[in-house]
Amino acid sequence: MSTGLARRQFLRNIATTAAALAVATPAFAEQEHSAVLTSASSGNDGFIIREMEPENLESSVSAFSSFITSADQFYVRNHFKQPELSSANWTLAIDGAVSHPLQITYAELTVMRSRTMVSLLECAGNGRVFLVPREDGAQWANGGMGNAEWTGIPLADVLKLAGIKSTAVDVIFEGADSGELTTPNPKSPGVIPFARSLPISEANHGDVLLAYHMNGKQLPPTHGFPVRLIVPGWYGMASVKWLKRITLTEKPFDGYFQSLQYSYFERSNGIPTVLPVTTISVKSAIIAPGFAHKIARGHDFKVRGMAWAGVNDITSVEVSTDAGKTWNPAQLISPTIRYSWRMWEFTWPAPSAGKHTLMARATDSKGNTQAMERNKDYRSYEITHVIPVIVEVL
Amino acid sequence: MSTGLARRQFLRNIATTAAALAVATPAFAEQEHSAVLTSASSGNDGFIIREMEPENLESSVSAFSSFITSADQFYVRNHFKQPELSSANWTLAIDGAVSHPLQITYAELTVMRSRTMVSLLECAGNGRVFLVPREDGAQWANGGMGNAEWTGIPLADVLKLAGIKSTAVDVIFEGADSGELTTPNPKSPGVIPFARSLPISEANHGDVLLAYHMNGKQLPPTHGFPVRLIVPGWYGMASVKWLKRITLTEKPFDGYFQSLQYSYFERSNGIPTVLPVTTISVKSAIIAPGFAHKIARGHDFKVRGMAWAGVNDITSVEVSTDAGKTWNPAQLISPTIRYSWRMWEFTWPAPSAGKHTLMARATDSKGNTQAMERNKDYRSYEITHVIPVIVEVL
Repeated sequence: MSTGLARRQFLRNIATTAAALAVATPAFAEQEHSAVLTSASSGNDGFIIREMEPENLESSVSAFSSFITSADQFYVRNHFKQPELSSANWTLAIDGAVSHPLQITYAELTVMRSRTMVSLLECAGNGRVFLVPREDGAQWANGGMGNAEWTGIPLADVLKLAGIKSTAVDVIFEGADSGELTTPNPKSPGVIPFARSLPISEANHGDVLLAYHMNGKQLPPTHGFPVRLIVPGWYGMASVKWLKRITLTEKPFDGYFQSLQYSYFERSNGIPTVLPVTTISVKSAIIAPGFAHKIARGHDFKVRGMAWAGVNDITSVEVSTDAGKTWNPAQLISPTIRYSWRMWEFTWPAPSAGKHTLMARATDSKGNTQAMERNKDYRSYEITHVIPVIVEVL
Repeated sequence: MSTGLARRQFLRNIATTAAALAVATPAFAEQEHSAVLTSASSGNDGFIIREMEPENLESSVSAFSSFITSADQFYVRNHFKQPELSSANWTLAIDGAVSHPLQITYAELTVMRSRTMVSLLECAGNGRVFLVPREDGAQWANGGMGNAEWTGIPLADVLKLAGIKSTAVDVIFEGADSGELTTPNPKSPGVIPFARSLPISEANHGDVLLAYHMNGKQLPPTHGFPVRLIVPGWYGMASVKWLKRITLTEKPFDGYFQSLQYSYFERSNGIPTVLPVTTISVKSAIIAPGFAHKIARGHDFKVRGMAWAGVNDITSVEVSTDAGKTWNPAQLISPTIRYSWRMWEFTWPAPSAGKHTLMARATDSKGNTQAMERNKDYRSYEITHVIPVIVEVL
């Protein structure tokens, strides 16, 4: 499936409108739905509200059925109130350590050479609700992730126009959203904008986009209209929405959202040092059955889910139906598309009545496999250890 | 008072035992004590307990009367339970980016060429109780500070023995104290040691000491026995106690205690970036009258206090007895000794009955004067704005 031919064939199938995508991309079979006797989501397959203001909406993963996530099913992670912007008045400033500071209008940006790319986004806190003891922050289950097609201009092209000075080390991306964070700790120093940086080397990678289309249509306001950054393979916090300003700096940027928040610990000689959260680690999620679902006995059951590994590819997914004692290979039902998830399924032969603990674990092209236990050094981010799903077969 | 002659005279007066210091160094006159009608400290002039375990003890500043703070009046700031160490078994490791990693015993260290120096230490959170709204952390009033005489060997000499590699950028100091911080947020990643770093340039400054004597006597266990770092002019968190290991690193160290804690914000183009707390900023404290003290009318009253400015010198202190409307020069009654506080007093002529708001503000040799308002970018550290003291004259 991951051969060049299959990939090219698949890429041809990804059309440039969301309607076409829905038809052309792989979807899970519907057969197993009839076997689910109860569902915790009680009829609402849209969003789970995690916070009203700022808006933080989790996708209902049990409703995920296809390779591409539609914009209206795609999780929303906001740090501040959503800004109201118009493409007519919007400009993007590029300043700091550049030889030609400039301002780009929406019209200028959208006539530049563009690229289209499918990329998964995952909130760095996705899965936080599974942590024991509880951690502060939005209590995402599995639905702080989605896989969409983004169209925009390579950031590298705009940086080239501005002329990067040789002294520049970091590129700061500032969103038009701002506010004051008073809880959880640590607080922000009064009102601050949402801002994150990339090292120059990453910013110049041709796959980093200034995106203005999502699934072939204008970016919705919720997802960063008029223009957002897309940093494929990185956790979602890097893909700054509502871009307003890009500043090149001569010293490393240690902003609030990459030091006090969205950071983890790496140990050297036992002493932890703080690093910003960057690329997505290998992970799988079981999306059916859902937590506490009851399923019918006497039928084969299709366990299904997604697996992804940031800038790496998924090479295998294994499923256990006995709490990790034995593992069986799952079938990968979508091809390898860089930065995207892979859909997988596993046929669970006619499970017997009673409670069962299901697990899935993915392995990536670098040989990394999901851990069974949580590593505290990741604070409340990169929640990639194996999460059991307990189901009852009646 | 700050002429070379006065300074040399004063330095001669500082003997090498605490008993001698008590006699030889300046002291406030006792006259004004009789004028204080009530005191909030209700007879206990030792410590205000801020936390039992780990032990965090604030000095009762109303009991401060002399230039040198005795060890048993000196504030105690512990992050973890105090380790029990013996000088016989203790060794200090110097490792990392050095050509000759080594271990030094207490006996070896104490026969090396030593230096004696008076230096103020101030907790970076000193004054936190005055912040509105309340901030998490130990609720220090003014007494998270003290001025003591330290004897030890220059750190630079030990680094020279170990041979600093040209690739080294930071020097990490690790204490023997460790534990897990679960509150306030952010949490530590499990058990961590107390550790802080200095840039190579600071570590090589000849005034940074590996100290083993405080006020002419063996360092007490509470203050870091057998050996602690003294970084004069820096907030106290830099002067790591119970030193265990010194590691030179080739990349900047972003440890828990200089990123998630003990850090502040500096803005560039409106976007805050996180920096470790380092040197002490200019500040004064009124130590008499104390908060809510009642004093007798019809007598001149000696308002007294201390002022300090880290690596800079204090050039003036002004006092206001009318809530900042007018300011009068205070008299500096101790000479300029680098890294130390200066004692000051101001004669308040026979105050009238009623409530009065007293303020003091210091100016340093760089022209910095204390601000009247708190700057939120300092988080809950460097609390140096002018703090009013309201007293009632009966």
